[in-house]
Amino acid sequence: MSQTDEVKIVFTPSGRQGQVAKGTNLLQAARQLGVDVDSVCGGRAMCGRCQVNVGEGSFAKHGIDSTSANLSEPSASEARYAEKRKLAADRRLACQCSIEGDLVIDVPAESQVHNQLVRKAADNRTITLNPPVRLCFIEVREPDMHEPSGDLRRIIEALETQWADRVTGAITCDTHVLRQLQPVLRKGKWQITVALRGGNQIIAVWPGLKERILGAAVDVGSTTMSAHICDMNSGEVLASTGIMNPQIRFGEDLMSRVSYGLMNPGGADEMTKAVQEGLQQLIQGGAEQAGMTAEDVMEVVLVGNPVMHHLLLGIDPIELGGAPFALAVDTSTELRADEINLALHKGSRVYVLPCIAGHVGADAAGVVLAEAPQTSDKISLLVDVGTNAEIVLGNQDRMLAASSPTGPAFEGAQISSGQRAAPGAIERIRIDAETLEPRFAVIGSDIWSDQDGFDEAIKDTGITGICGSGIIEVLGEMYLAGIISEDGVIDGTLAEKTDRITEEGRTFSYRISDTVSVTQNDVRAIQLAKAALHAGFKLLMDKMEVPRVDRVVLAGAFGTHIDPKYAMVLGMVPDCQLDNVVAAGNSAGAGARMALLNMDKRAEIESVVRDIEKIETAVEPSFQDHFVRAMAMPHKTDPYEELSKAVVLPFRSLKDNAGEAATPSRSGRRRRRG
Amino acid sequence: MSQTDEVKIVFTPSGRQGQVAKGTNLLQAARQLGVDVDSVCGGRAMCGRCQVNVGEGSFAKHGIDSTSANLSEPSASEARYAEKRKLAADRRLACQCSIEGDLVIDVPAESQVHNQLVRKAADNRTITLNPPVRLCFIEVREPDMHEPSGDLRRIIEALETQWADRVTGAITCDTHVLRQLQPVLRKGKWQITVALRGGNQIIAVWPGLKERILGAAVDVGSTTMSAHICDMNSGEVLASTGIMNPQIRFGEDLMSRVSYGLMNPGGADEMTKAVQEGLQQLIQGGAEQAGMTAEDVMEVVLVGNPVMHHLLLGIDPIELGGAPFALAVDTSTELRADEINLALHKGSRVYVLPCIAGHVGADAAGVVLAEAPQTSDKISLLVDVGTNAEIVLGNQDRMLAASSPTGPAFEGAQISSGQRAAPGAIERIRIDAETLEPRFAVIGSDIWSDQDGFDEAIKDTGITGICGSGIIEVLGEMYLAGIISEDGVIDGTLAEKTDRITEEGRTFSYRISDTVSVTQNDVRAIQLAKAALHAGFKLLMDKMEVPRVDRVVLAGAFGTHIDPKYAMVLGMVPDCQLDNVVAAGNSAGAGARMALLNMDKRAEIESVVRDIEKIETAVEPSFQDHFVRAMAMPHKTDPYEELSKAVVLPFRSLKDNAGEAATPSRSGRRRRRG
Repeated sequence: MSQTDEVKIVFTPSGRQGQVAKGTNLLQAARQLGVDVDSVCGGRAMCGRCQVNVGEGSFAKHGIDSTSANLSEPSASEARYAEKRKLAADRRLACQCSIEGDLVIDVPAESQVHNQLVRKAADNRTITLNPPVRLCFIEVREPDMHEPSGDLRRIIEALETQWADRVTGAITCDTHVLRQLQPVLRKGKWQITVALRGGNQIIAVWPGLKERILGAAVDVGSTTMSAHICDMNSGEVLASTGIMNPQIRFGEDLMSRVSYGLMNPGGADEMTKAVQEGLQQLIQGGAEQAGMTAEDVMEVVLVGNPVMHHLLLGIDPIELGGAPFALAVDTSTELRADEINLALHKGSRVYVLPCIAGHVGADAAGVVLAEAPQTSDKISLLVDVGTNAEIVLGNQDRMLAASSPTGPAFEGAQISSGQRAAPGAIERIRIDAETLEPRFAVIGSDIWSDQDGFDEAIKDTGITGICGSGIIEVLGEMYLAGIISEDGVIDGTLAEKTDRITEEGRTFSYRISDTVSVTQNDVRAIQLAKAALHAGFKLLMDKMEVPRVDRVVLAGAFGTHIDPKYAMVLGMVPDCQLDNVVAAGNSAGAGARMALLNMDKRAEIESVVRDIEKIETAVEPSFQDHFVRAMAMPHKTDPYEELSKAVVLPFRSLKDNAGEAATPSRSGRRRRRG
Repeated sequence: MSQTDEVKIVFTPSGRQGQVAKGTNLLQAARQLGVDVDSVCGGRAMCGRCQVNVGEGSFAKHGIDSTSANLSEPSASEARYAEKRKLAADRRLACQCSIEGDLVIDVPAESQVHNQLVRKAADNRTITLNPPVRLCFIEVREPDMHEPSGDLRRIIEALETQWADRVTGAITCDTHVLRQLQPVLRKGKWQITVALRGGNQIIAVWPGLKERILGAAVDVGSTTMSAHICDMNSGEVLASTGIMNPQIRFGEDLMSRVSYGLMNPGGADEMTKAVQEGLQQLIQGGAEQAGMTAEDVMEVVLVGNPVMHHLLLGIDPIELGGAPFALAVDTSTELRADEINLALHKGSRVYVLPCIAGHVGADAAGVVLAEAPQTSDKISLLVDVGTNAEIVLGNQDRMLAASSPTGPAFEGAQISSGQRAAPGAIERIRIDAETLEPRFAVIGSDIWSDQDGFDEAIKDTGITGICGSGIIEVLGEMYLAGIISEDGVIDGTLAEKTDRITEEGRTFSYRISDTVSVTQNDVRAIQLAKAALHAGFKLLMDKMEVPRVDRVVLAGAFGTHIDPKYAMVLGMVPDCQLDNVVAAGNSAGAGARMALLNMDKRAEIESVVRDIEKIETAVEPSFQDHFVRAMAMPHKTDPYEELSKAVVLPFRSLKDNAGEAATPSRSGRRRRRG
């Protein structure tokens, strides 16, 4: 033990260190040295958030011997906590320890306020925590006849003295909280937990210690709505839920909903009600999955395309249905949850990410936040395909965004056998180039159509159609098998070779199964859609004067299910190394979660979105040129050679892509061998 | 006309003057020189708010010749305005004039933004205008495909450029306004009027030019609620309305309401609902009287005692019913009108003045704001009598406040014939000191009981009791006529002289009419109440170490109806020159109106209230001493001699006080002559 009145203390992993007076409280010392140690109860051995480990041994680097004997014995409160709440043998509550000698103290990740949260599984981004709402346990002075003051004043005083580092300015208090203050204070015997938002708003109070509140990050898609329910303190995802967007009854695709609103008086209000009710159901269900209730949800972050964004907020999206496609608001919005009829905690707030432009929504802003092209010198292309394709191109120097009018073909609409991604829909296919026989798999089954047990596997669903990502694969395979020509015509002469090619009026179609065929019109619809998508990113690349991109991120469900190779065959992504084409999953939702848990991310996306150059494809003459040129299959401009390496070659070892369970058909096997 | 490129311009009444370039727009010139000229339409000859007069002739003081020829000819817009909206011949629209030569320009009161508003009739205070909500007419850029931006962004841009002097920071927009933006912009053909609150909140939009919005200043009393409905731009009171507080059904006085809440589950909520409904009815009725609707009300200011304050906000007042009488909140509160269930404009806000202490309410804060003792070196005593007497004493150096537990006797409760001030209640009385015969007048009639036509005048109401202010006069007269002794005993020996004195058990009572008597218990109740009141202000005077006050302000209905002389007889006001005792009428309501129309007044009262020393009489031993000593009638400590000058002498010329219609009784006349 050091013989002086000052001792040396080193915190890991931050590496912060300094001299403190012997006897200093360990939590205080951490704060003095700017070390992130969490606490809800404010040093009362109640919340257990400030757990630390003592580094034992000689630390030559720091020139000190550290031992747990250099910390005070556990206090009665700490012993009580250890008994009631289970404290690991090597852990101490920092708030209960005084420093008696040199120490190395390790702050485990879960005790750090701004801990780096590693997202699970495929979703391996990190989120730094800086949540908008924090729980603060306080002890409040009792009222006194000799010095009359309101209960709120004494609560604010307690926050200012007991949580000085969290208070950012003059504190206000929600009206609904005013109504609860007095009973809560008395029930809690002058100990309460306050939910402090933005460092200056009291939005909730609970008697005694409240340890956990929830946040919801929601991606409101036209088809599905999905939510992550998070612990607002740890950032942990406690539940992930999804439901169909109840608006589907007003029309499958976005434009049919806009026109529903246009054609039916009160239609927009009906759709608003539907999506708000869906949101309530989604969040409430998620909170219950997490073992809590809707009442525990204090913060919600929403992303969605511009039409969903407007309908959610109760804004009629009619202006988004025609030129000049004016958004009502292109900044972020913050409101009380009850303003959009969410029955959560009364103090709950909603933050909605900004839309980027009339057809580039808050979901695209979420993708930008998650993929962060603005932080790199590499050029990223972010593509989110829906009824429109939302496209963002750029890097740290410059960002552009546009929307391409792909129409709903990629969502399976306008395709004769097209359907939503649902059990029974064909999503994978291979066509034998010699026999022109297809083999395929449907959603809901891992067994391919040429495998034993297929009929049994699909007996409940049947083969109902082709989903959006499936149609890309079908077209790609049809082209590669020579069924469609470079200009997209189904080759009628092949009817002599197989009865799968049949004449329909003046064109031909290709039969995949008894119930599912691909018509010439289907091919045209996809050609138009893929050409629009291609023209969109080409236009942005022209504007930015870059001949190629370093990275392509396919966001959203469509991007997840599509096979990048086929996307490249069709020219749906620009030429680049195939392994630089990434399916990012629900990036929009990931961005929402970042904004939910970190206030800085809100400021960041607001600033990035403000600076993004918004390009309206409809007024760009070169868009039309690109569009016409991009109709061919495969896309022929740009290095076709690269394409053949990237696409045709991998195609020769398709086994990897057919899934573990796939047994290639005889012909397929033959081809691969050849 | 001046021959240089610069001309001289003088504005009256401000006296501001300067050189401006020839050709300068007159409204711009006024703004350059910091002259208050109003405008809603922002210089488009639509609102007519910027009307000015040209001073004609030689102004030796300024060395200039001013003539209307030195202003440009009326523009087409001005001519159109003059034709459609009637512009007086000598008036010009400043926004349409360019300055062609030296000028003296008079800005009439109604064209000044911060004009001094002289309150009407007895209410001769002035209010400087600085309203929280301002109407701003703007022309908004249309959306453009080439530069996509949200409608809100372009509105904010228009406000920032067209109303730069009114915008105080980053502008936010209410959610309900977001929903209206797009249809309103298109309906108004890109010309709209915005209600801008606090210089940074958009709380309402209207297509085209909206010229008038309303504000309501409401005093929520336990018995009556009264409102002034004001034009938020001119400050003019357009309507004044009053209704009974619907809570009366839960108990006449405050404490019976607190106990209703205590005894009945949900009782506080019922009372909240009642008072909020009353408030809606009051404001809506007032708006309609002003020829407009509840939808036009954008701002409400409320004052009331602590119990009303809490109930209005939906806070259970239970803590105010017992020591230590803790307020939930002792600061001002600001909320949306719908948070207290007011169906006004959706953007309407409510500002509630701060309560001073557990028994000294926001109504007392309103009185302070209206009477402004903090602005003078003279010492003022403000007294507002209700169930408790709210007392404020002080001057610019120091202010103290306390509440005296007078009980409801001054409101007519606990008095055998006591009643609320309503038709039929005795409010004025004189007792002949020789015959002991009373003569009196009741509310609802100007005719005294000894005058012809009295029976006819009261045939609808009868003589129902004595109101609160009446009881003071009755007691004062009973004392002066020798019916009660200095220690408050009704003199039974007088029963020999008149049958108006009758025995009741061991005490006596005095009969005023067949239905109304004053018992010994009544006298005791008033003695207790007046002693409490006296002890309250004496305690504050002790604390402040002042032997006397310079001014006494009696606020509220009680203060208005009470005759200061009798108040002094009973010791209800401290000794001072009788003409320094002022009945201020509804000062609390006047304070509310000041806070409604001037943001600076809100900051002022918040700061004053924060600094007021709150004295709790219950813990001050000297209160009890003062209380005991103050039981005697008349109050005997302090210069009795002064009292006799102030009270007894005026009593000798009672004619002035009996009203124009009063015919003194014969005996009364004799006394005065003697």
